[in-house]
Amino acid sequence: MTSSFRRVAVLGLGLIGGSLLHALRLTSAEVVGYDVDPSTAAAVSASGFSVAASDAEAVAGADLVVLAMPLPDVEAALRSVAPHLPATAVLTDVGTLKRPVLDAVRAIAPGTAFVGGHPLAGVEDTGWAAADPLLFRDAPWALVLEDDTPLDAWLRLAELVCDLGARPVPTSAAEQDAAVARVIGLPHVLAEALALTGLAGGPLGLSLAAGSYRSGSRVARTRPALVATWCDDNPALVTALDDAIARLVRARDELAADGSVLELATAGHDARIHWEQRRFDPVELPADREHLRAHGAGGGWVTAVLRTEGGVRMLGMRPVDA
Amino acid sequence: MTSSFRRVAVLGLGLIGGSLLHALRLTSAEVVGYDVDPSTAAAVSASGFSVAASDAEAVAGADLVVLAMPLPDVEAALRSVAPHLPATAVLTDVGTLKRPVLDAVRAIAPGTAFVGGHPLAGVEDTGWAAADPLLFRDAPWALVLEDDTPLDAWLRLAELVCDLGARPVPTSAAEQDAAVARVIGLPHVLAEALALTGLAGGPLGLSLAAGSYRSGSRVARTRPALVATWCDDNPALVTALDDAIARLVRARDELAADGSVLELATAGHDARIHWEQRRFDPVELPADREHLRAHGAGGGWVTAVLRTEGGVRMLGMRPVDA
Repeated sequence: MTSSFRRVAVLGLGLIGGSLLHALRLTSAEVVGYDVDPSTAAAVSASGFSVAASDAEAVAGADLVVLAMPLPDVEAALRSVAPHLPATAVLTDVGTLKRPVLDAVRAIAPGTAFVGGHPLAGVEDTGWAAADPLLFRDAPWALVLEDDTPLDAWLRLAELVCDLGARPVPTSAAEQDAAVARVIGLPHVLAEALALTGLAGGPLGLSLAAGSYRSGSRVARTRPALVATWCDDNPALVTALDDAIARLVRARDELAADGSVLELATAGHDARIHWEQRRFDPVELPADREHLRAHGAGGGWVTAVLRTEGGVRMLGMRPVDA
Repeated sequence: MTSSFRRVAVLGLGLIGGSLLHALRLTSAEVVGYDVDPSTAAAVSASGFSVAASDAEAVAGADLVVLAMPLPDVEAALRSVAPHLPATAVLTDVGTLKRPVLDAVRAIAPGTAFVGGHPLAGVEDTGWAAADPLLFRDAPWALVLEDDTPLDAWLRLAELVCDLGARPVPTSAAEQDAAVARVIGLPHVLAEALALTGLAGGPLGLSLAAGSYRSGSRVARTRPALVATWCDDNPALVTALDDAIARLVRARDELAADGSVLELATAGHDARIHWEQRRFDPVELPADREHLRAHGAGGGWVTAVLRTEGGVRMLGMRPVDA
């Protein structure tokens, strides 16, 4: 794969940053990593990767800089690296929420060509040891395209994301955070509540707990501090919780009145099956900001960014019913 | 395996009844099945099992009769078969809720040696085609021991359940239904609400939905009518929903006040890990009603019912911290 980026700096070498390091090695780009934790840096270096001694050294000469540290550390990392960012570098990140990072970049490094990113890839394990060059294969990867995002930087990053086997999803920071509230924040909060409510019933329930409790509380296994970074500071999660709570209260009242959950179960079943059975058609996409955002909002993604003599040609997939 | 039952009739040959037919063939008991659906009966018969032409024929001479039809059909089946039940037969069932069946038996077939049962086994597939002789291996199997349950019948059934590789859990109908509300009913209602709330956010969310939405809404794939039989008519589910809703409202209010889900996530994480990491010690159990119920309420189960010259000797497992 020939990347349009010549030198990529990855700051933060946990699961996502580490996997990026692995995956980028398969492209034409020169790749250098950096981690504030010396033992992580040593482990990455021992695996044969180029690891810089400082963030300033890592980003020197880079035309793409990836902020891949945990969200709570992004602001400090940004302050540290901002004075050293090459003027022509594209900056991106990999965090779950896009609004806080966008705000931080606008405040700390205004004028930087910043394209917020969020690969929807993750496993239960974390850290460099779990890094996997195939982690991003077929994973959706939200790429934020605001009114002031440089379109060329966005297209170059989308091209790289396609090269990694992932699916760039054009969106705005607000739209992506609202979507993430419903499909990441909410399932985590529900899982935590289920795990606790199950435990509160005492040991008999825990010994009868089977498949539905197991899958429903699975993501409560996630490190609590991580869950907090995915949920906190996202107003859309309050809306999503209000929506879910209202549905649960209706079911509760129905049962209390000797009614049935059948209506909820039928609607829920249809929703889940609808999600599973979505089908997609290929589509040609103009490299146009509004068109791309509408494509992402409609459930579509980019499959290829092709540079031809006539300009940029893009291909994508979109839901059949959109 | 030498069963204390000589002839077992299984009425209803879906996933659970069919799996029982398979598993019982590995014991010394003679086994006969029956299903109201002629095509199911024909399929079972074609697989080499003995299938009766009527419920009356199936239970003739049986010393164990298993009601394995869906819960909504149990009452009619009981009315149909009650006049034909041998006086010495033990009657059991395999439904998720124990109170409704106990009430039905007391009303329709009073005086029958009834021991309600609930194997916590199940897969996403249903029906005879999914039947599996190993379905019950290591599965908890609630066995109801009320004040008026004949202890000898209970012990014989517990022995058979052990022979099937499952784990008899002594409990009362009320306690088992309360436990099931928290670890079966609640996870299903939460999964339905999650599936719907995710869908309500539109196609962008559905395209970004990944592992947590997938596992959190997994059991929304279950046939809605089945979910209703597990949830409806169980007052304890209203209590469990109140508990879960209160936790969600607290998290919602915390987030709305710019707070964090960290406290909930930490408690939920600890609850899930506690459940996963429970350890058990072997224990000798007296064949005593109160002792057995306390053993089940404490998270224990029976591993063996041994008939010796000195009487019945029982072994079990109980949580280390109980």
